[in-house]
Amino acid sequence: MEIKKIIEFQNGDYIEGFFLIKSVEVKTSSNNKNYMDFTLIDNTGEINAKLWECTKEDEEKYLQYQLIKVRGNVIEWQGRLQLKIVKIRHATKEDNLNIEDYVLCAPQNPQYMFDEVVKYIEKIENQDIKKIVESIIYESKDKLLFYPAAKINHHAVRSGLLYHILTMLKSAERLSEVYTHLNTDLLFAGVILHDIAKVDEMEANKLGIVSDYSSEGQLLGHIIQGIKKIDRVATKIGADEEISMLLQHMVLSHHYEPEFGSPKRPMIPEAELLHYLDIIDARMFDMQKAIEGINSGDFSDKIWILHNRKVYNSNLKKG
Amino acid sequence: MEIKKIIEFQNGDYIEGFFLIKSVEVKTSSNNKNYMDFTLIDNTGEINAKLWECTKEDEEKYLQYQLIKVRGNVIEWQGRLQLKIVKIRHATKEDNLNIEDYVLCAPQNPQYMFDEVVKYIEKIENQDIKKIVESIIYESKDKLLFYPAAKINHHAVRSGLLYHILTMLKSAERLSEVYTHLNTDLLFAGVILHDIAKVDEMEANKLGIVSDYSSEGQLLGHIIQGIKKIDRVATKIGADEEISMLLQHMVLSHHYEPEFGSPKRPMIPEAELLHYLDIIDARMFDMQKAIEGINSGDFSDKIWILHNRKVYNSNLKKG
Amino acid sequence: MEIKKIIEFQNGDYIEGFFLIKSVEVKTSSNNKNYMDFTLIDNTGEINAKLWECTKEDEEKYLQYQLIKVRGNVIEWQGRLQLKIVKIRHATKEDNLNIEDYVLCAPQNPQYMFDEVVKYIEKIENQDIKKIVESIIYESKDKLLFYPAAKINHHAVRSGLLYHILTMLKSAERLSEVYTHLNTDLLFAGVILHDIAKVDEMEANKLGIVSDYSSEGQLLGHIIQGIKKIDRVATKIGADEEISMLLQHMVLSHHYEPEFGSPKRPMIPEAELLHYLDIIDARMFDMQKAIEGINSGDFSDKIWILHNRKVYNSNLKKG
Amino acid sequence: MEIKKIIEFQNGDYIEGFFLIKSVEVKTSSNNKNYMDFTLIDNTGEINAKLWECTKEDEEKYLQYQLIKVRGNVIEWQGRLQLKIVKIRHATKEDNLNIEDYVLCAPQNPQYMFDEVVKYIEKIENQDIKKIVESIIYESKDKLLFYPAAKINHHAVRSGLLYHILTMLKSAERLSEVYTHLNTDLLFAGVILHDIAKVDEMEANKLGIVSDYSSEGQLLGHIIQGIKKIDRVATKIGADEEISMLLQHMVLSHHYEPEFGSPKRPMIPEAELLHYLDIIDARMFDMQKAIEGINSGDFSDKIWILHNRKVYNSNLKKG
Amino acid sequence: MEIKKIIEFQNGDYIEGFFLIKSVEVKTSSNNKNYMDFTLIDNTGEINAKLWECTKEDEEKYLQYQLIKVRGNVIEWQGRLQLKIVKIRHATKEDNLNIEDYVLCAPQNPQYMFDEVVKYIEKIENQDIKKIVESIIYESKDKLLFYPAAKINHHAVRSGLLYHILTMLKSAERLSEVYTHLNTDLLFAGVILHDIAKVDEMEANKLGIVSDYSSEGQLLGHIIQGIKKIDRVATKIGADEEISMLLQHMVLSHHYEPEFGSPKRPMIPEAELLHYLDIIDARMFDMQKAIEGINSGDFSDKIWILHNRKVYNSNLKKG
Amino acid sequence: MEIKKIIEFQNGDYIEGFFLIKSVEVKTSSNNKNYMDFTLIDNTGEINAKLWECTKEDEEKYLQYQLIKVRGNVIEWQGRLQLKIVKIRHATKEDNLNIEDYVLCAPQNPQYMFDEVVKYIEKIENQDIKKIVESIIYESKDKLLFYPAAKINHHAVRSGLLYHILTMLKSAERLSEVYTHLNTDLLFAGVILHDIAKVDEMEANKLGIVSDYSSEGQLLGHIIQGIKKIDRVATKIGADEEISMLLQHMVLSHHYEPEFGSPKRPMIPEAELLHYLDIIDARMFDMQKAIEGINSGDFSDKIWILHNRKVYNSNLKKG
Repeated sequence: MEIKKIIEFQNGDYIEGFFLIKSVEVKTSSNNKNYMDFTLIDNTGEINAKLWECTKEDEEKYLQYQLIKVRGNVIEWQGRLQLKIVKIRHATKEDNLNIEDYVLCAPQNPQYMFDEVVKYIEKIENQDIKKIVESIIYESKDKLLFYPAAKINHHAVRSGLLYHILTMLKSAERLSEVYTHLNTDLLFAGVILHDIAKVDEMEANKLGIVSDYSSEGQLLGHIIQGIKKIDRVATKIGADEEISMLLQHMVLSHHYEPEFGSPKRPMIPEAELLHYLDIIDARMFDMQKAIEGINSGDFSDKIWILHNRKVYNSNLKKG
Repeated sequence: MEIKKIIEFQNGDYIEGFFLIKSVEVKTSSNNKNYMDFTLIDNTGEINAKLWECTKEDEEKYLQYQLIKVRGNVIEWQGRLQLKIVKIRHATKEDNLNIEDYVLCAPQNPQYMFDEVVKYIEKIENQDIKKIVESIIYESKDKLLFYPAAKINHHAVRSGLLYHILTMLKSAERLSEVYTHLNTDLLFAGVILHDIAKVDEMEANKLGIVSDYSSEGQLLGHIIQGIKKIDRVATKIGADEEISMLLQHMVLSHHYEPEFGSPKRPMIPEAELLHYLDIIDARMFDMQKAIEGINSGDFSDKIWILHNRKVYNSNLKKG
Repeated sequence: MEIKKIIEFQNGDYIEGFFLIKSVEVKTSSNNKNYMDFTLIDNTGEINAKLWECTKEDEEKYLQYQLIKVRGNVIEWQGRLQLKIVKIRHATKEDNLNIEDYVLCAPQNPQYMFDEVVKYIEKIENQDIKKIVESIIYESKDKLLFYPAAKINHHAVRSGLLYHILTMLKSAERLSEVYTHLNTDLLFAGVILHDIAKVDEMEANKLGIVSDYSSEGQLLGHIIQGIKKIDRVATKIGADEEISMLLQHMVLSHHYEPEFGSPKRPMIPEAELLHYLDIIDARMFDMQKAIEGINSGDFSDKIWILHNRKVYNSNLKKG
Repeated sequence: MEIKKIIEFQNGDYIEGFFLIKSVEVKTSSNNKNYMDFTLIDNTGEINAKLWECTKEDEEKYLQYQLIKVRGNVIEWQGRLQLKIVKIRHATKEDNLNIEDYVLCAPQNPQYMFDEVVKYIEKIENQDIKKIVESIIYESKDKLLFYPAAKINHHAVRSGLLYHILTMLKSAERLSEVYTHLNTDLLFAGVILHDIAKVDEMEANKLGIVSDYSSEGQLLGHIIQGIKKIDRVATKIGADEEISMLLQHMVLSHHYEPEFGSPKRPMIPEAELLHYLDIIDARMFDMQKAIEGINSGDFSDKIWILHNRKVYNSNLKKG
Repeated sequence: MEIKKIIEFQNGDYIEGFFLIKSVEVKTSSNNKNYMDFTLIDNTGEINAKLWECTKEDEEKYLQYQLIKVRGNVIEWQGRLQLKIVKIRHATKEDNLNIEDYVLCAPQNPQYMFDEVVKYIEKIENQDIKKIVESIIYESKDKLLFYPAAKINHHAVRSGLLYHILTMLKSAERLSEVYTHLNTDLLFAGVILHDIAKVDEMEANKLGIVSDYSSEGQLLGHIIQGIKKIDRVATKIGADEEISMLLQHMVLSHHYEPEFGSPKRPMIPEAELLHYLDIIDARMFDMQKAIEGINSGDFSDKIWILHNRKVYNSNLKKG
Repeated sequence: MEIKKIIEFQNGDYIEGFFLIKSVEVKTSSNNKNYMDFTLIDNTGEINAKLWECTKEDEEKYLQYQLIKVRGNVIEWQGRLQLKIVKIRHATKEDNLNIEDYVLCAPQNPQYMFDEVVKYIEKIENQDIKKIVESIIYESKDKLLFYPAAKINHHAVRSGLLYHILTMLKSAERLSEVYTHLNTDLLFAGVILHDIAKVDEMEANKLGIVSDYSSEGQLLGHIIQGIKKIDRVATKIGADEEISMLLQHMVLSHHYEPEFGSPKRPMIPEAELLHYLDIIDARMFDMQKAIEGINSGDFSDKIWILHNRKVYNSNLKKG
């Protein structure tokens, strides 16, 4: 029997494959028996799956975010494919799986991206700025390798935060060729630090899926947490006070509007640009994702994170 | 010749007195000669004063915020009293003046108020909270004795910040008798710390008059500065992390609305009440000030800091 | 068999008890037979209950807001307890029940609270104010004893309106010790009258549950209705015009913001304080209620009436 | 010497005429002497006038809103005409003046407009509505004959309130031919009553110029005052309660938006239409006034009461 | 057997009738068989209907917006009438049906309304304006005869756009008798053109039901589309530039507020009035519709398109 | 005598130089004689200048925006330098002046910038897009060479519009290397066309100073005017309809928010990015300008076009 990816399923198939349990619920059918209602995903899509007449052990054994191996029949139910599970077990080390095949991941390798970010840090000339950035990024490295940039919004993919930082660094470098009066030390540092405290604000598992916000995350938020991080490191290394203050200002003002969490608006051009690099990267990501899901000449549904806009996929060539 | 207070001046008087220069400008009269145009104040009022045909030395000698001794004629000019200066000199130590007689001050003695605040700190049972508050308040004591609470708004009087804190503590204590589930340790600490970083945000002279905002004050603001203060002290004394976080949350949320500087709204009842104690104290101060300036049965002008409201001074008895 | 409160139910119990029908619906099961689907409450909680294979008479007999006596089996259904009703009858006088045991009530006895409010009225020195307040409060007494303060928001409990008034009076008295220039006659009267016309705006049953808003309540609202009440009584007793006007102004402005129903903002300090006493009492009530439902160290869900905030239940001791 | 209107003045004229003192101020010239600086108006325009070297008696004799007779020289001063007063005296009964010649008035005779409004009242079939309207309008008749509709905004002309009502009645009648389901009794009554309490809210002199707002006007506003008026009359005549309530609702909701003073939005079509008739009449008046002041093809300045819009006077024919 | 309208159905009837399929879904019953779940409408109401045990052919044959003939039993299901379909077929030409009997239509005949609109065009004196309006209206005539004015809001009935235009023209004519300075050519043209591009913005079927918005409708909107229409025609006929510009301005500004799609607010009185005529017509339509559905003395539910207001149906006579 | 630039003036100098009259007013001195009050500028700064005892001919001869040659004394008046004009005449061809020396200009040569823009057009592959852009840019070339981008806001310098376009093109090219899915044809075209109709909206003289807005500019605005431009050209050359629609959408949506003139928000990523390129270029320009005017470590005044923010000039090196 062939191992299949979800995208390859067809009505009538009898398939075998590995999937991640995105969610699972125990329900009761009209004949009063329990069954398990799964949403299974791999990196090609998602499908509803039923394990009829499950046992109490099944209910306790197969839980959210686990990798499982499954055999079953693909049927069509009210116009949608569904998987009727025949066999189920946990994936094991021997199955030799790569997480990238089962969850949405940033398009580049985490360690590679981390190394690229470090190259930008190498370009920072001001030693105080460089030390602050280095200290913080290495302290956060473990989490940075898999953390998403958000719970449900833009870059909510494994290693999404790192990908977001790296893309912004590329844009920052290019635009500082056009706006030559900018201090690139500040700008690069701002890009790297602006969301770095998200690793403290959110609790994410190794799949890059956020389960919750931390208490401090909810009571203070990553902007305040980031400022404190800079304050502590800058104090420790005895950095110039203005430099510490400017980096904190960049983090503080990067959401731009008070109602989005920035009590101060940018007062230096590097902070101003940081905000727009951030928002451009989020929007390009979200719009591109929306476009990938629709045909040329069509509109997407209204997308909440784009302020309820629809996105149009034109017939012109892309890129 | 009699020493007179501004409130006692009458048209035709020839007076002598001590005054503070609130502002001074060198102007040119229609006959092309320079004269000095003063606004003089004491704690009973303010008056316009002219030094006609002043010398270059005069222009360089008599500056804003200085105490001067003056003789002159009180005249009426277009319906208002004005002082024509005949003699002028700086006040000296020998004149033996009290600053309270020349600038608007809080109605109680600064050291007395400080001691009263300390009594509230004594009531704090939780030792971590107590230590944090003590450490910060003694560190700020020098400035606290004369700082106003604002540049132009509520409690913009000498020692106004201390007075604001003390009055709020009284209200906090009383309302915690009604709302008995509140943690008074948190509440008292929140009251004392909520605006404490205003001593870093603003630059005020010993007269309690704010000349400017500091760079950090403008780029970060007293809310963020206050959080960093708590973070540093709590780290130093090894305070419980939740306690530090809750105190920071109280400072962070006390302006309540994002557009007024609080990226997070209160999530504990003590923070919620802190906000309202703050606003009640500001409003009672501003409304009472407005009422003092008008007759019973009259309305004040529109008052900007009361969102452009007029205040009505009823004919009913007060208090 | 033991009489049990809902909070004591355990899976497998066969129980007997008295409950209030919070809501009831006739539904049809998958085998095409009607059954009754109840939500039953007492003052310890609420539970879903089913009366399977009910008769037409049952459907017409057991209605919302009735007190019933029930026997049945407690079972677990998809993780929640459910009551399978075996026997059901109406409660009778002979059962000797107290309404306090079946609906959420204010924490103090209505008549006691009313008497306490009357004591505050006794403190009012101005005779016109006193007469107006007395006339209105006695006219509303019957309803005041059981009316809630709202349909679903703060103080939506039996006698909640009276409790709200009494608590605010306590706070008003205490804060007028701090802000000594306030006219306590006006302040106490404002507290008592500010929401008094809610007894005309809403239609509530003796359980303190609001079924609907009256026509006048919807077309004019309790603020306007309250003003008319004062206008009529003041005219009848020939009260001083300024006093009537000030009381009306306090009622008119107590929601503070036009978008919350106050076309005029407070222009006297007593009206200003009235607004904040009102909002503090609502918030302390709602936050406390939220905290009671969660463990220390946890956050509540987002609470709509707190503008979608979560509330945090700290690990510090309360009160 | 010829009696001239302001619009006829030319540089170099020596004129005689009657004018109203719109405002007057005593100023001091560069040679330190007092002079009186007048703004004089008649119904053709306004002009600045100077009485040089005035006496103390002059200063006390010629006051705002008085009618005066004046002789003087018309000169040009920095591009504008100015009147240098040579002779001045008060107008007397013998001068036989009509107020319409000296202040901006509604384009129709007040008594005629009042009679026209009465004709609309005659058309009201419901006797309760008719009695309420009649009672209130006759009670307000004296003031209605000369009151403007506002202090500075739309219809701020003598008898402007009456003109506003009459024009709206005409529109109301016509639109009820198109929207035939409307109750014209309610609609006509709503039009007549919607602003009627402006005669209590504002204090205006017989010239139709508002000097101030009354205390009750400021603390409650004409909407609340109007509701109380209806409430009192309806109670007195024992009107149907629904009718009284609907008329009050119409007055309450006619500003439509809470932030403009209506805590309730219209819930009946007659109230909805009332709002739009009101706003259309204000806008047509203000736009027409703006257009009259500019040439074809030009834009007006930004007009505050039109939300800072400019108005364009097209080259097309009007009417 | 009698042909019956939906409004005449009673529990237990065996009926025959013609209906329009408003929507249809294939569902699966608890015994795992497909059935068709219809919403059927005629111009008297709507009813749920089931075709149990349908065939694959049925599923493909009976589709949304088709007219069908049906026999079946009227039963009561959970308090509502439901139709159990016994026989079903498509309506045919021979059935001789009128669309007006099956969908909500404007209350007047489309061709009649079009002719009435043309009469207003005849009244336009300015030849450029007349030609532009004529050219555009005849170009849109086909669609105009059946297009609604909106997808779900006001005038979402067959020929609703034409009805909206005609009613506004009547009001425009009447109000220009009151406001005699208006240019009726501009006003009539503005009324006719303001929404004319809705026929390009939306895609509606002959039933007057909007299925979707066009791509250009979504990317530009009917306001911009209408301006381009005028621009093209005006250029073609060589119309006066100011006239073209004014007509475009009227279309551009008729939504009044930027957030509703008008980047410029009205700057001529005709545009100002156009906006209010538009909004009055929408509101009278929506409120009347709401009132028709409720008893005297009752309130409607909250109505979204009326900004969530309830509407009150008074006991007074209508019209 | 030496020809001096304004920046070189010192108190006591007797200078000669060429200047542009930025504004001029005839005033009357206290001795009742006319004098001319100039603001003179060159590209180094601006100075107030007086021509005392001017003749009628002078008043009519020296007008705004003229280039003049002047001799005079530099004096200090109330702390500021002022020029007392001794000799004045118009500049002549023989003086051989360059406009760049007298008004603020974009930092690059207009023709050079135009040629650079054309190079970007050469990169557009889609022939329809290319033709539309070419047609419009050549049609506007004359004005484009000197038009500013705004009356008082960002890029309000000679040739500012062209400079704004060119800078954005550079950024667009660079960011499309990072966001590789973008269609650069659309993006470049959008950048070039987004503000192109400002040459129709505003009336500017050859100095690049806007005197006023055109009638069409005020009634429709440059966004609508730009759409019509594209519509006309696209129709003429028979361009693909989707392409025309997308270009119009980009122009329509580039202000992003309805309240800033865009009734539709961007629905394609190229339009989204266009908006941010636009705003980044404006902000970098305005912030850099603000920074140039202040010392390191200082804050600017509040800058209206930066939403009343102050800008901080850090001590770090720039660029």
